[in-house]
Amino acid sequence: MTQVEQGAPPQAAAPHLEVIPLGGMGEIGKNITVYRFEDEIMVVDGGLAFPDSHQMGIDLIIPRIDYLQQNAGLIKGWILTHGHEDHIGGLPYILPRLPRVPVYGAPLTLGLVREKLAEFGIKDADVDLRETALDAKVRIGKSFHVEFIRMTHSIPDNAGYILTTPVGKIVHTGDFKLDEEPSDGKLSDLDKIEQAGKEGVLLLISDSTNAERPGRTVSEAAVTRALEEVVRNCKGRVFMTTFASNVHRIQNTLNVAHRCGRRVVMEGRSMLKYAQVATGLGYMEAPDPFLTSEDVGQLQDQQILFVCTGSQGQPMSVLSRLAFGTHAKIALRRGDTVILSSNPIPGNEEAVNLVINRLYEIGVDVVYPPAFKVHASGHGSQEELATVLNLARPKFFLPWHGEPRHQINHAKLAQTLPRPPKRTLIAKNGDVVKLAADEFKVTGTVAAGAVYVDGLGVGDIGDDVLLDRVNMSQEGILIMTAVLHPVPHVEVVSRGFVRSNRDLDNQIRKVALEAVEQGMKEKKRLEDIRDDMYGAVRRFVRKVTGRNPVLIPMIVD
Amino acid sequence: MTQVEQGAPPQAAAPHLEVIPLGGMGEIGKNITVYRFEDEIMVVDGGLAFPDSHQMGIDLIIPRIDYLQQNAGLIKGWILTHGHEDHIGGLPYILPRLPRVPVYGAPLTLGLVREKLAEFGIKDADVDLRETALDAKVRIGKSFHVEFIRMTHSIPDNAGYILTTPVGKIVHTGDFKLDEEPSDGKLSDLDKIEQAGKEGVLLLISDSTNAERPGRTVSEAAVTRALEEVVRNCKGRVFMTTFASNVHRIQNTLNVAHRCGRRVVMEGRSMLKYAQVATGLGYMEAPDPFLTSEDVGQLQDQQILFVCTGSQGQPMSVLSRLAFGTHAKIALRRGDTVILSSNPIPGNEEAVNLVINRLYEIGVDVVYPPAFKVHASGHGSQEELATVLNLARPKFFLPWHGEPRHQINHAKLAQTLPRPPKRTLIAKNGDVVKLAADEFKVTGTVAAGAVYVDGLGVGDIGDDVLLDRVNMSQEGILIMTAVLHPVPHVEVVSRGFVRSNRDLDNQIRKVALEAVEQGMKEKKRLEDIRDDMYGAVRRFVRKVTGRNPVLIPMIVD
Repeated sequence: MTQVEQGAPPQAAAPHLEVIPLGGMGEIGKNITVYRFEDEIMVVDGGLAFPDSHQMGIDLIIPRIDYLQQNAGLIKGWILTHGHEDHIGGLPYILPRLPRVPVYGAPLTLGLVREKLAEFGIKDADVDLRETALDAKVRIGKSFHVEFIRMTHSIPDNAGYILTTPVGKIVHTGDFKLDEEPSDGKLSDLDKIEQAGKEGVLLLISDSTNAERPGRTVSEAAVTRALEEVVRNCKGRVFMTTFASNVHRIQNTLNVAHRCGRRVVMEGRSMLKYAQVATGLGYMEAPDPFLTSEDVGQLQDQQILFVCTGSQGQPMSVLSRLAFGTHAKIALRRGDTVILSSNPIPGNEEAVNLVINRLYEIGVDVVYPPAFKVHASGHGSQEELATVLNLARPKFFLPWHGEPRHQINHAKLAQTLPRPPKRTLIAKNGDVVKLAADEFKVTGTVAAGAVYVDGLGVGDIGDDVLLDRVNMSQEGILIMTAVLHPVPHVEVVSRGFVRSNRDLDNQIRKVALEAVEQGMKEKKRLEDIRDDMYGAVRRFVRKVTGRNPVLIPMIVD
Repeated sequence: MTQVEQGAPPQAAAPHLEVIPLGGMGEIGKNITVYRFEDEIMVVDGGLAFPDSHQMGIDLIIPRIDYLQQNAGLIKGWILTHGHEDHIGGLPYILPRLPRVPVYGAPLTLGLVREKLAEFGIKDADVDLRETALDAKVRIGKSFHVEFIRMTHSIPDNAGYILTTPVGKIVHTGDFKLDEEPSDGKLSDLDKIEQAGKEGVLLLISDSTNAERPGRTVSEAAVTRALEEVVRNCKGRVFMTTFASNVHRIQNTLNVAHRCGRRVVMEGRSMLKYAQVATGLGYMEAPDPFLTSEDVGQLQDQQILFVCTGSQGQPMSVLSRLAFGTHAKIALRRGDTVILSSNPIPGNEEAVNLVINRLYEIGVDVVYPPAFKVHASGHGSQEELATVLNLARPKFFLPWHGEPRHQINHAKLAQTLPRPPKRTLIAKNGDVVKLAADEFKVTGTVAAGAVYVDGLGVGDIGDDVLLDRVNMSQEGILIMTAVLHPVPHVEVVSRGFVRSNRDLDNQIRKVALEAVEQGMKEKKRLEDIRDDMYGAVRRFVRKVTGRNPVLIPMIVD
């Protein structure tokens, strides 16, 4: 509350708005953006991120929302752009920690949110979800007028928005590509961006994911044609995998299967979940009823197409179990074709490569990009980014949804255009970006960052715990327990250090015991004896093995 | 020795040869191939591999050589194709474990081997290195006639060979691309392969690395042109990184620097080592003497070019230290340009991406593929692979130097050619491939696989130790020490589990103590008490945290 007083401008000053990204700025993942005007806050999205290889054992990452908790009373409403995990996956953790305010989103987006909240036991009545059309206008508080705009992406009901505020208009693209042949025939609302551009856009916030890619991103229609060509030429069973959330891709695959005389079996929990939600809301329609893997026994191989999870090489997914021969009901065999209608997300390359190699070893035909054009990104490339910049003609520009390399290349792209923005900021999570008619700068920062979710724990793992995990993963751990009475002796146990080695254990025990006995003789304090044992063993182990396991010295008096 | 008798063919049978890959078949890395004819063995290369993300904490991997050790008396000689780590990096571990036999290789290759052996304290007299010209013919034992052939690659003095044996001719390409504008002007010896093809090639063993890439691999000359264009346009200092072993690339960079009026500083241990060996043997010539980072103070920014280590994002490399601002002498600044003349090797994507993002954040210009064509692979693409297959016209074909996906795509490529091989085998490490005039099949297997090198230890880490490391990295470790006398109590220590939490520790201690006291009351054996404590704590921890840390129960009586 103090912050409100402090932040409130003196009467004379021009009104200003603050844009505060709490996630998704300088990274790809856990998107959440806060707008504040005087004593009103509006929030956009609430996503999660997946851990990188140093965040060992972490299930997922959600954004820190300290700022929202500290200013909870000011939050007037929430809008959601689309149903991807990096935009809605954090909501079950975030919403219960904040006051109940209206949350606006399109039908599929809210359908997926409801499903997710239900999994966490959060009741409908605990949240205020308000379904809006994809071209709806909603008012949040006194200051925020939101007009949703349709933008094509890899999930239906994807929205950007034009935000009219007391300081001016903001266009936020949301995640987008400019698909000229979208699966549902509905193009992006570029006319609305153009109109806003004519009226004057103060700030453009735009998707930087593919800012390093020249040209245009391939249309979903081209992917469908490639998929159909592959499936038409398959003589045996077909197994296709993609992101379960890519409802368009899956719909198109159902259509391809129908045209090729194949019945579809959906396999995998998340695949079934998305299909159920999308079908229930009318976003997916199976030309033929789905079969189960038991039903297909009477069909010929060339009449079957499996749509399954595992496009990212996830160990428990259907495709991984097929590749490693651990699926309970289905065994791949020569003559089958597996289509990976996907690219590995950074960090998943090794897992996907492992699956692909196993598939080759089984002898199935494996179809994947780039040799086959069976995947397209959901994010626009440089020409599409330029189109939006040219239409919006913003005064200020905030490249968003990208790592620094993507943000900066997006900024450079903007500078090459006929009417470049007056000013572009490369912002980070937690930056407070002050926006006024003639002002656009970072004026401060608020707490932002990662909260680790692991098992049932949210936030009980910090960087110190992760550092221990990294250290143990590199060198293992060695535990020495010294018992002082009646006769001093030392027990040694290790994990992940070296192969069980009695000689080495005995030597370590001897070194530790000498330190302990010396300490006892000198009547040192227990802590000092423990430190002596630690030091002696560390030096000895380093000398004879060249390694530095995590050492845990314990003294039992 | 028994194996020799068993393996010896009856008088009447046609003579046959065995090809036994001990590394590099079905993988990219740790190449070593064994040929055996009756009681003579010849070995090719002895490389190392780098660990994947599940082989935590491992420094490097060398091939198992049990077969060679068991048949040590039969080894007549060794040949080396080139000086890359995946072909010679295992030799300091392998050669001392086997009898001293002639090891043939080209001057640069042996220069690098000598350097490597010296680092391990292996004396020249302990090995029998025999320098050969790149077109030399050598005889190994009675049965193996080797003719080296020049093949272009990303290091000078790279060789394949034609092996004439009692059963027929084998062409082994070694690592290669068919560079039409090689840096030293020396083309691959395709005429010799063609000649062998006319005489009749029984078996072709060929590099599968890029069997999935259509077309041709870009020439090193095109890379040089791209580098020169970039450097010529730089106004500030230039920092260029590539593989230290890519002597051609570095030579070309020295030439580019000279033509652009820049003096060169070499930074990083491996960069200096390769430059020293290559310069000493006449494979590298600096147009201007190298400077040190101290010398350049008096030069202007646009007169300086640093060649430095770090193309793979290695944490201790020069480029990483520059990116993270931890270099003792040099600080990057706006106006500098960093050129990554390299692609991340699979597994290094995340580390390289991190470095690139940090460089962008500093504000330097960052130049890397594919936006800039400043790198080319050292391995040929489909057209080049087809050229070799067409010239060699082998009866049998063994796609090598690749994972299954690469081997199988190489095999498929061969089938599309006008004169496809009669038979292609997709072999694995340890396969015994029997080769005779009319026979080509896997007839058995020998021990093969990975020996982990970690710190000073070679082979003292097995898969059990790695599994412990993986488990600890995911969930941490929890150690419970129960002291039974005089009064039972339990100490709990954890690492990498959850943030220090006294409440949880107390609850765990209580659960453990209850199990211990119950066991004592029932006068159970110590092992049973320990198991009870383990079980009780495991159940409790799983219930309240949803996690499964590695548990270590200890009882002190």
